[in-house]
Amino acid sequence: MTRTHLISLAALLFAAPAAADTLVDNVDGISVDRAGKVTRFTGIWIDDDGRVKALLQRKDKRPQRTDFAVDGKGATVIPGLVDSHVHVMGIGFGALTLDLSQTKSLAEAQAAIRAYAAQFPDRKWIVGRGWNQETWGLGRFPTAAELDAAVADRPVLLERVDGHAQWANSLALKAAGIDSATADPAGGRIERLPGSRAPAGVFVDNAADLVAKAVPAPRPDDWDLALAKAQEILIANGVTAVADMGTTIEAWQSMRRAGDTGWLRMRIMAYASGPQNMELIGGPGPTPWLYDDRLRLNGVKLYVDGALGSRGAWLKAPYADDAKNTGLPLVNGAQLRNLMSRAALDKFQVAVHAIGDRANAEVLDAIEELSHTYGGDRRWRIEHAQIVDPVDIARFGQLGVIASMQPVHQTSDRLMAEARLGPARLSGAYAWRSIAAGGATLAFGTDAPVESSDPFAGLAAAISRTGPDGQPFGGWFPAEAVSREAALSAYTANGAWAGFGEGRFGELRPGVRADFVFLDRDPLLASPEDLRATRVLQTWVGGERVYEAAGAISSQARGR
Amino acid sequence: MTRTHLISLAALLFAAPAAADTLVDNVDGISVDRAGKVTRFTGIWIDDDGRVKALLQRKDKRPQRTDFAVDGKGATVIPGLVDSHVHVMGIGFGALTLDLSQTKSLAEAQAAIRAYAAQFPDRKWIVGRGWNQETWGLGRFPTAAELDAAVADRPVLLERVDGHAQWANSLALKAAGIDSATADPAGGRIERLPGSRAPAGVFVDNAADLVAKAVPAPRPDDWDLALAKAQEILIANGVTAVADMGTTIEAWQSMRRAGDTGWLRMRIMAYASGPQNMELIGGPGPTPWLYDDRLRLNGVKLYVDGALGSRGAWLKAPYADDAKNTGLPLVNGAQLRNLMSRAALDKFQVAVHAIGDRANAEVLDAIEELSHTYGGDRRWRIEHAQIVDPVDIARFGQLGVIASMQPVHQTSDRLMAEARLGPARLSGAYAWRSIAAGGATLAFGTDAPVESSDPFAGLAAAISRTGPDGQPFGGWFPAEAVSREAALSAYTANGAWAGFGEGRFGELRPGVRADFVFLDRDPLLASPEDLRATRVLQTWVGGERVYEAAGAISSQARGR
Repeated sequence: MTRTHLISLAALLFAAPAAADTLVDNVDGISVDRAGKVTRFTGIWIDDDGRVKALLQRKDKRPQRTDFAVDGKGATVIPGLVDSHVHVMGIGFGALTLDLSQTKSLAEAQAAIRAYAAQFPDRKWIVGRGWNQETWGLGRFPTAAELDAAVADRPVLLERVDGHAQWANSLALKAAGIDSATADPAGGRIERLPGSRAPAGVFVDNAADLVAKAVPAPRPDDWDLALAKAQEILIANGVTAVADMGTTIEAWQSMRRAGDTGWLRMRIMAYASGPQNMELIGGPGPTPWLYDDRLRLNGVKLYVDGALGSRGAWLKAPYADDAKNTGLPLVNGAQLRNLMSRAALDKFQVAVHAIGDRANAEVLDAIEELSHTYGGDRRWRIEHAQIVDPVDIARFGQLGVIASMQPVHQTSDRLMAEARLGPARLSGAYAWRSIAAGGATLAFGTDAPVESSDPFAGLAAAISRTGPDGQPFGGWFPAEAVSREAALSAYTANGAWAGFGEGRFGELRPGVRADFVFLDRDPLLASPEDLRATRVLQTWVGGERVYEAAGAISSQARGR
Repeated sequence: MTRTHLISLAALLFAAPAAADTLVDNVDGISVDRAGKVTRFTGIWIDDDGRVKALLQRKDKRPQRTDFAVDGKGATVIPGLVDSHVHVMGIGFGALTLDLSQTKSLAEAQAAIRAYAAQFPDRKWIVGRGWNQETWGLGRFPTAAELDAAVADRPVLLERVDGHAQWANSLALKAAGIDSATADPAGGRIERLPGSRAPAGVFVDNAADLVAKAVPAPRPDDWDLALAKAQEILIANGVTAVADMGTTIEAWQSMRRAGDTGWLRMRIMAYASGPQNMELIGGPGPTPWLYDDRLRLNGVKLYVDGALGSRGAWLKAPYADDAKNTGLPLVNGAQLRNLMSRAALDKFQVAVHAIGDRANAEVLDAIEELSHTYGGDRRWRIEHAQIVDPVDIARFGQLGVIASMQPVHQTSDRLMAEARLGPARLSGAYAWRSIAAGGATLAFGTDAPVESSDPFAGLAAAISRTGPDGQPFGGWFPAEAVSREAALSAYTANGAWAGFGEGRFGELRPGVRADFVFLDRDPLLASPEDLRATRVLQTWVGGERVYEAAGAISSQARGR
């Protein structure tokens, strides 16, 4: 072997470890840490494990050899967004379900149902939602026969826009075993054909279950389809990591299939649906981080109360619009403490849904008590924390409780919250800034599919306390708005920390997975209106591009 | 950089890929392929992925550089044994359970129970088995009070040696809510104190469930302990891969925890317990091979009939010792075909338990019919195939059905089989050679913990048709014995193939995972008696030593 051979060989071998390095250059890069401190950069050097090797400033020398180089052409780059409260499978199943909410007449709905059935010939049932006979100008409920006119070869079941009624076709009635002899259940009504006991096709309130229970449970293929669809939606929205609130064993198995066979494209921090799923999924404790930090069972999701709209939120004083009602706890104090202890004993993280001020106080009380037994880095979470008594606000910070809140809920709910609570109890409502000022970690999310998973609507609400219509002018209790930096941190670094993901994702700095998003504007400079209009151009997870918008910047990629 | 530097650098870099290679040398190596063809070798060169890089003959040049070298000092090496029918968790739970079968008196049993309780202070219940008031010379059943005398601070429940009675202490009675008012269930008897309705402590036959159902289900920690124990036992027996027959989701989750956190030391081919577990574990089909070929859900385990001993095996003609009884199918023909179709539709492998000749014929019929619809490489399995009508024997080969059989059952069961079947129906009993002669693949196993998981007892039975006592002289229907090579193949290469593991394990040849066992004798030369006495000196899985017997050859390991 000659000297020349050896030299070229050595060069080749030296190059090898760096062979899969990637340089993303010429960007307007932003990262925010948990304290809201902003780092700006113009290049990201990514190693062959998909981690950030270095953030580069304009003056910094670029690496000599990289396998892959991307010219960002000055686009804004921020860390991949972390949505701290979603229902992953709900997003997927929702997107795969027939949506009638935009139909303007019965005939239009029938056409949409027919088209959907033709699009999915393999589905054994057609399930959908969103119809409203009022917007159709029908003046009455639709009938099974009118649904048969659209689809008669398979059972069809469609939920009304408000979720309080189901519309079935004849095969669905047959599958559910419902006929003239079926009695109305307590709290429910079966619509009947005029002058007859024959069911007309619509089932109101508790009667809806009579037919809904006949819909087959999702099969593994359905779960996989829903997971794939949810990932597609989230990634297109710039979301690279989520906390999945209420993971079942079926959902978990689908996530593992995705990881095992290489189609888990984003990061999921799972919170099991109750203790049974927690034990079945996690076993004696949280799982390890799996699939290069793409999946972990962190803990368990528990519930203390319901929602404000249905007056299920548990309040300290009666509802302003229902003087005898304070809502209801779903578990009593002893049960809550038992459930939390059982999880904490095995080091599962505990995330408790609490909407009303009484519910939030109850969870804070329980955390205060349990902290004596279960010390260390527990990262107790309260999900939603919507209505907090001002006397309890500082306790979040004092007890180290993470407030996992959804800014868009404030803009969606404000009129309803005013009605339910009256003017005197709004100062602790959606009180982001006060909770953070008390030293608590804010982790922002969307509650998708309850709200859209678009994080920019949330960021805009967070900094403005206004809705997409710009209302109310000047913002609703605008003192509770947070800074752009704090909002971005709550959607990135804090979201990762809230799920024990710090050092793995949520920021852009050396050693962290290279999860980032190309945007068409700078979220730290945009007005709330501009922020809402943000377009995600590309999404990268673990140093790989997993999404590029149609017609987005044609970033130049080339081997060097 | 000088030339000298470059040369040493290149040498270093060249050495790197081979740095973790291992050489196991100076062995008397044996591998057998599916046809029973023997390959002998003296060295195994293992690559850094734990696969066989080359088998070396004495004359072959050894690799210049290996990281690790082992001098086998002439010991016999065979491929790791593949047990095609075990219950992994049963092995583990069985080994962790108090065993009273060797106790000679009530006092001795009480001492053993007391000692066991002291050894496991964290167990909430003490569960055990194996007591026999006859061998104690007690002349009556023991009482709850006598069990309280051993352990009174926790519930205790102990199964009689024959499985037909349970002995409970007072706390177990209390936990089960059993008192004087509890009636005997149909087919069961609660022993009562003399002259009283108070339960005495022993529950016979169907009454046993009254108290057994109060025993808490295993927790995740228990499953993990059982899995660790089972692996320890199997690996010490030289077994490196098993087919787990009847995997539940709880067991699967434990296996995944083992894989995720690096304590899955052997290979498990899982067959789900029924369709629900199949769907929950596998989802839309078999899982990929996980953890470097250490775990896969292959398919589903189904049942057609029961066992011969309890006359649950389904026969074509009545039992010789019960003239009106032909046993019973557990599912009818349509149900069986539906279950098999559901699995086959999603490409799950189907393994059906069939003991009696009628049951075997039924499964063969079903396979014949389903093969028209579900073609391709299906590898239908019949588990046990104990009693086959001679007219059906050739159908195994014709239909490509794997006969998954347990040689030790023949020696354990032969007297019972003679009683149940009479002399005229024994020619198709445990008919290994005939089934193989018809072209079917024989895959051998143990059914552990029903039998010991020691494979050498099985190999000895397979070649001799005699039990550990050497009886019957000359062997039981000795024409059904198989050659040593065929027996070893059924325990290695065929076992891997029966679970789609060929090319991954089961043989020693280049490209296959380096799973092998050091023995103190050559199984192709040993007499049946010698074979039974085989000692496993070391067990290697994936090129790593996972077991070494105490006092075994001190094989020399050193870096080179």
